Amino acid sequence: MKHLLGTRGLARDAAIDLLDIAEDMAAVQEREVKKLPTLRGKTVVNLFFEDSTRTRISFEAAAKRLSADVINFSAKGSSVSKGESLKDTAQTLQAMGADGVVIRHPASGAPQTLATSGWIDAGVVNAGDGTHEHPTQALLDAFTMRRRIHGAASRGRGLDGVGVLIVGDILHSRVARSNVWLLATLGAHVTLVAPPTLLPSATQDWPIRIGYDLDQALAGRPDVVMMLRVQAERMQGSFFPNTREYARGWGLDDRRFDELPATTIVMHPGPMNRGLEIASQAADAPQSTVREQVANGVSVRMAALYLLLSGEQGQR
Amino acid sequence: MKHLLGTRGLARDAAIDLLDIAEDMAAVQEREVKKLPTLRGKTVVNLFFEDSTRTRISFEAAAKRLSADVINFSAKGSSVSKGESLKDTAQTLQAMGADGVVIRHPASGAPQTLATSGWIDAGVVNAGDGTHEHPTQALLDAFTMRRRIHGAASRGRGLDGVGVLIVGDILHSRVARSNVWLLATLGAHVTLVAPPTLLPSATQDWPIRIGYDLDQALAGRPDVVMMLRVQAERMQGSFFPNTREYARGWGLDDRRFDELPATTIVMHPGPMNRGLEIASQAADAPQSTVREQVANGVSVRMAALYLLLSGEQGQR
Amino acid sequence: MKHLLGTRGLARDAAIDLLDIAEDMAAVQEREVKKLPTLRGKTVVNLFFEDSTRTRISFEAAAKRLSADVINFSAKGSSVSKGESLKDTAQTLQAMGADGVVIRHPASGAPQTLATSGWIDAGVVNAGDGTHEHPTQALLDAFTMRRRIHGAASRGRGLDGVGVLIVGDILHSRVARSNVWLLATLGAHVTLVAPPTLLPSATQDWPIRIGYDLDQALAGRPDVVMMLRVQAERMQGSFFPNTREYARGWGLDDRRFDELPATTIVMHPGPMNRGLEIASQAADAPQSTVREQVANGVSVRMAALYLLLSGEQGQR
Repeated sequence: MKHLLGTRGLARDAAIDLLDIAEDMAAVQEREVKKLPTLRGKTVVNLFFEDSTRTRISFEAAAKRLSADVINFSAKGSSVSKGESLKDTAQTLQAMGADGVVIRHPASGAPQTLATSGWIDAGVVNAGDGTHEHPTQALLDAFTMRRRIHGAASRGRGLDGVGVLIVGDILHSRVARSNVWLLATLGAHVTLVAPPTLLPSATQDWPIRIGYDLDQALAGRPDVVMMLRVQAERMQGSFFPNTREYARGWGLDDRRFDELPATTIVMHPGPMNRGLEIASQAADAPQSTVREQVANGVSVRMAALYLLLSGEQGQR
Repeated sequence: MKHLLGTRGLARDAAIDLLDIAEDMAAVQEREVKKLPTLRGKTVVNLFFEDSTRTRISFEAAAKRLSADVINFSAKGSSVSKGESLKDTAQTLQAMGADGVVIRHPASGAPQTLATSGWIDAGVVNAGDGTHEHPTQALLDAFTMRRRIHGAASRGRGLDGVGVLIVGDILHSRVARSNVWLLATLGAHVTLVAPPTLLPSATQDWPIRIGYDLDQALAGRPDVVMMLRVQAERMQGSFFPNTREYARGWGLDDRRFDELPATTIVMHPGPMNRGLEIASQAADAPQSTVREQVANGVSVRMAALYLLLSGEQGQR
Repeated sequence: MKHLLGTRGLARDAAIDLLDIAEDMAAVQEREVKKLPTLRGKTVVNLFFEDSTRTRISFEAAAKRLSADVINFSAKGSSVSKGESLKDTAQTLQAMGADGVVIRHPASGAPQTLATSGWIDAGVVNAGDGTHEHPTQALLDAFTMRRRIHGAASRGRGLDGVGVLIVGDILHSRVARSNVWLLATLGAHVTLVAPPTLLPSATQDWPIRIGYDLDQALAGRPDVVMMLRVQAERMQGSFFPNTREYARGWGLDDRRFDELPATTIVMHPGPMNRGLEIASQAADAPQSTVREQVANGVSVRMAALYLLLSGEQGQR
């Protein structure tokens, strides 16, 4: 694997291989010294054109546990804000000897441009681009489901036949998009539930079913319910119902949570709006994987950096 | 020691143990390679909800000299500013495998909440919370006094019978509070001198004496005079005399400094307002420990991180 | 070498020695593990009073590849912005055990003050001060020219007889000043071309020739053409022609580039304003060294940090 730009088009074998390596990385983090020498002498640049402390520190921890040198490059206040092009930034990082670039960008497709333009030899990891993809989030979600469902027998397996409900602002969610592609590849059955204004208009080629009624969808007893974060800054717009209406129609409130089978997994990419898209009872219940998702995020990102930068992908 | 939240309630033995370890750490910094492998594979997060470059880089240097991986998490521009709760932030850091969290927070008690809520297993170091405590500052101050007074014979000793005068804005000073508790525990006699509006109203249970006249207090020939920083942003309020009046009444100016015994130690936590609470002559005199305090800060913070994170506190 | 404050007064031998060490450092970066243990246990502080992501990450990568611990200290939002003096900041860094301080400051002369005041023992590298000097930029430029011109036979050599044209806003450019002194020391012949309002008034003691007509200067077939960055924020002032006029008079546009000998090297310190001071054709041509300059910047900064901090300068 040279780059990790998205989950659309990611082959099933490659995805399962990455999840299996993430299992090895999770084991490293159980050790006394949570560190591997694998990427010693490699430089990973976190190139963030949008603030995202959580994602940045997850990648930073992952790279440091592989002994890479990490350089944080926040595009705010940099020459980027003085009008430097992505091309010039890329060539600068290339020239400085960056081996890996983790990029978060508000424009959909920027990581693809960075990786395929020839400006840079470094491995590129998409850490979220516009409303397009956020592949490591989907991979950590899949990793989390696989561990919950298959436990110690996870290695080598996909998510065949697993029923996943994704609920909320699909329209603006790169997390939802990356999950849709990856989950389908791994054999899961995905249903999206959202207010009609928060669904993309063209989903006919997506491997999903659509629902508009959350209670009805929950009655289908999904194996996994993934609640998306409501972006408060979008609440003013005409897209969105108001918060009370949203919580009533599409929130995982106490009543809905109580009616779920005890085996249904509750997921959220964080940070949560408690009381809006998810009630605290659901967020903190044993069925909730919110914290596992964060922990697995480090393992999955270690696996991605390992695959892209260790130069050993051929031997596996 | 699991956490370092304050000096109130810190046992004398534990305090002296930490100061003794800080002596070892000071020795490390005299070496050619100023580094120990002690915390290799551990992750220390600097979680700063207030700007404080000086404190942050002191902890960062301390952690790196123990070979820990350091992740800086400034809460500005992070999801915290988007309304994420301290609980969710804590659980995120926990899930990412943080072994230690150094927290600076504007709310008194936030580090206590973080440490005792069960949200996190990491060792928590309070790097300053509201007007409550700043324990590593008090420990570095005590370390500095002990070294000046007892020299090479410092190990194992407290500050019994040492007379300490703390001067300035006690009301808003977490540095003063942490010093009051620690110095009393170590056997020192503490006197506070301040304008009446800058003294807390309820100090009856504090192990201190109060004075309102700096010249009278200095005539008592204290062993140590600790000048607190005037927060310029508070100067507008009704609490504060104006700057000229303040310097005249409560500043360590040239005349007062000249009248001090040559053995009296002059301390300041920095950064100093030269010409306001302290004259340059006093700040730069041999009696001044301002720079030693900064140097000792790294040693004391190494000791704190060692005690909290090395997992060897049982064996000592 | 104790400090690197400027190229004015830097001896030819010392400059060539540094460039030769940079050749060794460039070789390190060709290796599988791009890292030397040389500065293990040393602390390098990047003390930036102005934003400059490119320069900061170049120094950060250089220090990390020498295994130093790096602490970034952005003076924004720090106690510096609360009025702390450079003296107190310096003494703080000294006390914390900084071995090297890389300083970027808006005031010309600040690095000199830091290095010669006695406040600090650390080696000081000037990373750009006001309109004064930016010595590592000039050294990386000279390194780049030397490699292009002398190839594998570069070691030990200067730039004797090389004709260099520097074009643009000389008045405000520390890059130009540092290049003027260093190139003269290395034996090059420097000509400056600029709009009259963008030339300093007192250049009579500079070892240069002056031109006002770019086409005429280019007709002299220089070995090197170095285009300076136009600071857009200065474009409003009366100093500057408007952008169209500037590009027509002093830009390396397609016509001028086409008329250059194929052997003329085109340089730019970055980031470029494509279409203003340099056309994309010139920027991306084989004659352009823009990317080499960035790569060589890391090697040259490794060499500077090595010379200042390894304690081995005596033995060489």
